[in-house]
Amino acid sequence: MTQINRRRLFGLGAAGVAAVGAGALATQTLTEGTAPAAADATAAPVPFYGEHQAGIVTPAQDRLHFVSFDVVTKERAELIDMLQEWTAAAARMTQGKDAGTFGALGGSPEAPPDDTGEALGLPASGLTLTIGFGPSLFDDRFGLKSRRPAALADLPKFPGDDLRPEISGGDICVQACAHDPQVAVHAIRNLARIGFGKVSVRWSQLGFGRTSSTSRAQATPRNLMGFKDGTNNLKLEDAAMLRDQLWVAPSDGAAWMAGGSYLVTRKIRMNIETWDRAPLSEQEQIFGRNKGEGAPLGGHKEFDEPDFAARGAGGTPVIADDAHVRLAHPSTHGGARLLRRGYNYVDGSDGLGRLDAGLFFIAYQRDPRKQFVPIQRMLARSDSLNEYIKHISSGLFACPPGLRDAGDYWGRTLFT
Amino acid sequence: MTQINRRRLFGLGAAGVAAVGAGALATQTLTEGTAPAAADATAAPVPFYGEHQAGIVTPAQDRLHFVSFDVVTKERAELIDMLQEWTAAAARMTQGKDAGTFGALGGSPEAPPDDTGEALGLPASGLTLTIGFGPSLFDDRFGLKSRRPAALADLPKFPGDDLRPEISGGDICVQACAHDPQVAVHAIRNLARIGFGKVSVRWSQLGFGRTSSTSRAQATPRNLMGFKDGTNNLKLEDAAMLRDQLWVAPSDGAAWMAGGSYLVTRKIRMNIETWDRAPLSEQEQIFGRNKGEGAPLGGHKEFDEPDFAARGAGGTPVIADDAHVRLAHPSTHGGARLLRRGYNYVDGSDGLGRLDAGLFFIAYQRDPRKQFVPIQRMLARSDSLNEYIKHISSGLFACPPGLRDAGDYWGRTLFT
Ligand code: HEM
Ligand code: HEM
Repeated sequence: MTQINRRRLFGLGAAGVAAVGAGALATQTLTEGTAPAAADATAAPVPFYGEHQAGIVTPAQDRLHFVSFDVVTKERAELIDMLQEWTAAAARMTQGKDAGTFGALGGSPEAPPDDTGEALGLPASGLTLTIGFGPSLFDDRFGLKSRRPAALADLPKFPGDDLRPEISGGDICVQACAHDPQVAVHAIRNLARIGFGKVSVRWSQLGFGRTSSTSRAQATPRNLMGFKDGTNNLKLEDAAMLRDQLWVAPSDGAAWMAGGSYLVTRKIRMNIETWDRAPLSEQEQIFGRNKGEGAPLGGHKEFDEPDFAARGAGGTPVIADDAHVRLAHPSTHGGARLLRRGYNYVDGSDGLGRLDAGLFFIAYQRDPRKQFVPIQRMLARSDSLNEYIKHISSGLFACPPGLRDAGDYWGRTLFT
Repeated sequence: MTQINRRRLFGLGAAGVAAVGAGALATQTLTEGTAPAAADATAAPVPFYGEHQAGIVTPAQDRLHFVSFDVVTKERAELIDMLQEWTAAAARMTQGKDAGTFGALGGSPEAPPDDTGEALGLPASGLTLTIGFGPSLFDDRFGLKSRRPAALADLPKFPGDDLRPEISGGDICVQACAHDPQVAVHAIRNLARIGFGKVSVRWSQLGFGRTSSTSRAQATPRNLMGFKDGTNNLKLEDAAMLRDQLWVAPSDGAAWMAGGSYLVTRKIRMNIETWDRAPLSEQEQIFGRNKGEGAPLGGHKEFDEPDFAARGAGGTPVIADDAHVRLAHPSTHGGARLLRRGYNYVDGSDGLGRLDAGLFFIAYQRDPRKQFVPIQRMLARSDSLNEYIKHISSGLFACPPGLRDAGDYWGRTLFT
């Protein structure tokens, strides 16, 4: 596969120049404008190799393309081959390199191009690709039954769930995050192209704005309800907490998952129009935070600790008993936390005059049985937010540890 | 309505500071990080007032939220009131100002907030809002029958059309373009909120990457087929051509449209998976341009003139007879041109393992009967691209001229 470094070709500087394959013409004189929109700081590549997969604690990028595949091949060897091909493509794309075989760039004009091409000329844009394996992959098909981690137990049905099977579950997921949506879309599409005949897209989701910060260096973004989201999130800087709450330890069982993490996705539709007509005071009571600053009710600044014991005139709790942050707070769950990494979505409108929009919730954790499940069980039962939301899809995936080097591949620890 | 300038509040510089309403507390000490992602160059506001509406020749921004409304009120006066309210909100939002009434910012906590809030803290991000009136608005309901321009003639059915009525047409459209999707989504949502009970969202579409350049200062982006799109587009710099091909002249009839333009939208689904398996040479034959550089076949550089007379070995045309650029070229249509301003879209997947993706085609012009219709008639009949695409929605709108000043409003020339 001929590899061309986009930045080198397009005059965006020599940083990050790596393997330029044998077929690349050094005398290539393609002229091309710079990337349409990437800001400098967000154009850079994120390292692909490491102890953990990128895209988990990586400071959340602005755009998402999430895909869930069903495996259609029955051959274990073919599945492994594809995962190896995917890995090579992911290593290349996340570093901003195209498989450039268009015309003068080499490659046969009689063959389909090695790359679909719509990201040619765009920088890496912080692209991360994060793979996960769903419970259904551990059925009889590939001899993986005994490798299923206990922590990958099917999620229970929660009160109020209105899940649509066709946009839930899946054998393999890939989360693509980038600062440029064209780059995220391109990456998933190329994986789908490479996987043709071996996997089939079950569902996919575009997210247009992040709803969480995963680093103290990031400002907290707002979700579609207009509230800052991600204030009290697990953050990249909290090393001890990440060890405790995010990464699977060797002692957790399922040794192939050590250094990995479990992913829960929930597509949560918001009743935007009703929300927009709710009084500000009700909106703030529901979350237990104010809307402008994001401070806990009774507090002043975004990062003030909520005081759940505080009572106002007449003895009513300042933060209501059914407020979202009270019910979701670690103190309510023996310290359990999540690394939230969701995105806003708008899928157009629903034919009834309403925006089809909400939160594509993404959370990583060490053990969903101890983290997502109890938190969501409590929220589903009591959260006053429930009047305005509905969970319409659900996904659960075991995301293996990171890759060591170019000899490693997605799924190696599982398949060997 | 309390108006707060986002940049002023959030320390993003004093440029663009304008009307700060009576309720704004000058001593406000909200602290907030800077916008999650806006690059400096793309953060600035685009002027709202002018001879023509912004969002047409404005250098195409990166993201789109397009909405089509049905009018549900039966009262002409109520419709006009709403258009005036919309205009005020549009003037405010395009300049990056929030109607900030959260908590300490003033406004009653017992009332719904004046602004949905999810763009609080974000800069203007080049937001433009462009309004258009569809043929259905000129029925009996509002006494506008005699005002319908001849150029707003219903589009004919084209061969191969597979239009879905529920995502086609509409009484009023608003095109929101911005460099930050959260800003574009926020704008449409606030218009829908303001219009509650008077209009109802018929359909809406998110576009994540532009597919055209509308200025020579912009690099040509790529569409989802991987080709540069917008090379031979009408551009902002071509003043004489814009007068001739884009803007309605007073002598065109329908005086209320003078300085305006007609908009055609077509949602065009691509058969991405089949396309990705087509040989490069076939892909290039279909467009009549090469994929890497975007040069016309037989030429060398992107902006070389195509030579439609050139013949290769054996006398076959270098640019095929059914190539897209030959059939769409002005020389094939007595000089007729379009200002294309489309966006890539991905609406997830289709339940059959394929991405639900394509081009949301947007074109502005002086008279669709002489521009879009004959061009599309020829393409629909003969374009070799048809094997890979399907038109699934269609819209036609009369976009009035620009607004003079804060006393003017959207639709004034039509309603008075
Ligand atoms: C549409 C649905 C949801 C919305 C709009 C939403 C919004 C918010 C907001 C605004 C906050 C406060 C700021 C922050 O600390 O991030 C928050 C906190 C939180 N949410 Fe949600 N959330 C939603 C669903 C969920 C779900 C499904 C879960 C997990 C089952 C969850 C778990 C949490 C947790 C753990 C916190 C932190 C609480 C704390 O420690 O103070 N949220 N959410
Ligand atoms: C998915 C559908 C379409 C795709 C992928 C597509 C793509 C392209 C590409 C790659 C070019 C060459 C570069 C350029 O000059 O912009 C082009 C040119 C053009 N297209 Fe399309 N197009 C599509 C549909 C349409 C439609 C529906 C129309 C109008 C009815 C249209 C009108 C034009 C025009 C006028 C040109 C310029 C031709 C010239 O002057 O050389 N296109 N298109």
